[in-house]
Amino acid sequence: MITLKNDCFIRALLRQPVERTPVWMMRQAGRYLPEYRRVREQAGSFMNLCTNPELACEVTLQPLDRFRLDAAILFSDILTIPDAMGLGLHFVEGEGPRFSRPIQTEADIRTLAVPDPEESLGYVTDAVRLIQRELQGRVPLIGFSGSPWTLATYMVEGGSSKDFRKVKAMLYDRPELLHELLDKLADAVAAYLNAQIKAGVNAVMLFDTWGGSLSTGHYRDFSLAYSKRIFDQLRIKQGDRTIPAILFTKGGGLWLEAMAETGYHALGLDWQTPIADARRRVGGKVALQGNLDPVALYASPESIRSEVKKILADFGQGSGHVFNLGHGVHPDIQPEHVGAMIEAVHEFSPEFHPL
Amino acid sequence: MITLKNDCFIRALLRQPVERTPVWMMRQAGRYLPEYRRVREQAGSFMNLCTNPELACEVTLQPLDRFRLDAAILFSDILTIPDAMGLGLHFVEGEGPRFSRPIQTEADIRTLAVPDPEESLGYVTDAVRLIQRELQGRVPLIGFSGSPWTLATYMVEGGSSKDFRKVKAMLYDRPELLHELLDKLADAVAAYLNAQIKAGVNAVMLFDTWGGSLSTGHYRDFSLAYSKRIFDQLRIKQGDRTIPAILFTKGGGLWLEAMAETGYHALGLDWQTPIADARRRVGGKVALQGNLDPVALYASPESIRSEVKKILADFGQGSGHVFNLGHGVHPDIQPEHVGAMIEAVHEFSPEFHPL
Repeated sequence: MITLKNDCFIRALLRQPVERTPVWMMRQAGRYLPEYRRVREQAGSFMNLCTNPELACEVTLQPLDRFRLDAAILFSDILTIPDAMGLGLHFVEGEGPRFSRPIQTEADIRTLAVPDPEESLGYVTDAVRLIQRELQGRVPLIGFSGSPWTLATYMVEGGSSKDFRKVKAMLYDRPELLHELLDKLADAVAAYLNAQIKAGVNAVMLFDTWGGSLSTGHYRDFSLAYSKRIFDQLRIKQGDRTIPAILFTKGGGLWLEAMAETGYHALGLDWQTPIADARRRVGGKVALQGNLDPVALYASPESIRSEVKKILADFGQGSGHVFNLGHGVHPDIQPEHVGAMIEAVHEFSPEFHPL
Repeated sequence: MITLKNDCFIRALLRQPVERTPVWMMRQAGRYLPEYRRVREQAGSFMNLCTNPELACEVTLQPLDRFRLDAAILFSDILTIPDAMGLGLHFVEGEGPRFSRPIQTEADIRTLAVPDPEESLGYVTDAVRLIQRELQGRVPLIGFSGSPWTLATYMVEGGSSKDFRKVKAMLYDRPELLHELLDKLADAVAAYLNAQIKAGVNAVMLFDTWGGSLSTGHYRDFSLAYSKRIFDQLRIKQGDRTIPAILFTKGGGLWLEAMAETGYHALGLDWQTPIADARRRVGGKVALQGNLDPVALYASPESIRSEVKKILADFGQGSGHVFNLGHGVHPDIQPEHVGAMIEAVHEFSPEFHPL
């Protein structure tokens, strides 16, 4: 295992002392970067890019060359697991992900097999190994997966959805069937994240992008319960190192206390909850990651700097904060605005970490 | 003033004793009803339907003939005020509302005039008077408006938006300019709701559909402050009657305590917050309206009945609950499923209101 030259991100997640607040950005390897768009074009399709370890490695590293980031995140898609389950993932221009064979019947769920990640998701673990070889310990590498609930929404709806009518109709009418699907997905996600850990990622993050669409009781039973089961299966102890795990539920501000009881080392916050409130509610148990509104990056660099300062001050003194957006960066944001955010974290955060 | 034959809805909003929980449904006059679609076709365009008092009256009453509802809601659009301000509202098939002349410059805001509702929104007050004549006190009539923040999002973006990038860029870069716009909108909304009250509505509701897109501090300063200012201007005392006012912020579950301090008699709840939690947090100050997930109406009538029962039991004994969805009914819901929801409220709610 290569020793990390910059482990500020890992220490913040473990609430150990740091000299400044670490910063990275959801979707930092992505369309807002012209160098990404060039590789994406070269790859032909988004799936070609995801499944080609060399290209995935290249775009993973791109933002690190431009910005003073404290972590890299594996370039991949949250829907690789359902694809490995045989649903046929593809992307329709301007409409997002689609499955050729969505889950439509009871039999579809019964016959679904939990994929062996080494076998059917080897392109991901290959990418992890390649990225770590290239990174040479510059910064930690984050692995990730979609949460079982979030994966299930795409699998049952057949793609993106505004209201999740099919999967929620299943939730109301056939809850036992949805649980069967989520059971399999939890096992698949745990195996997938463990394969990423084995291949060398330094931290993992579970994206529950659509958990916020649920009522509180349904969130607990159909999303959070499975996120917890995954955490319990994670091999977070690797020798004397700990692989920190982050749980992110967009729209989950009401549920931070419950999320903090699951074992995850850190919670991702969207921009709705003030980070001071979140820290008061759960900061004794977990680190917090966030939480600038991604839309704030459309504003001027001066406004961005001032918003960064506010969030740092809002969290206040001490470790346990990883600066990030509250959701992924938008594809038409100017890279200079991203730079303004990152530099502001470097400039303003040391005062919150006195020796 | 005609005496109401059924004032269960008004009493529940004022937290006075009722025999059963009243029920109505956001967008109950709408596309899911074949009789609505016939009138809509006859009108030619959605705006023709909104601006024709006879047709607006007809579709307002339609759901009352089908279902045992405890309130009617004026058929109109939340964007009538910006239209009266000269922005040129029209609807693009499948894409929702658009403005021909969106707010783009400082001068656009400076020259914006607060419309006199009697003059430029007479089609709305005419519809109110006509509906009340037809209703003959069967049930109360609800008037409504969009909130200043929600109206501002459409006016600055030029229509619907997923991320509100233009109006939020204004919020970050030119907050004083956005406040100027919201100032004018608050005055316009207050005058509009007062005109509806004068024309005879029995209750009013403020729809802050997009308040949930804001961070907590921005919600307080750019949305809630203006909703409160409107309440302070409402003529809620009409002789010895009170016109109850309802404040609804979709995605506002974190902010119920602050919302309950504004003076509104009731808060609308989306489906994320359990109504028992909401009651515990603010039920001593306000009534609560909600909160079945509109997507639950895709499930079977048996599931719908069971979900209705759960929400009624979750609120528990006593007055102060108006049953509703957590957002508007979807256009492709079967009317029979709506009927199952409404009948379940009639069947199960009396036990929560013992004499």
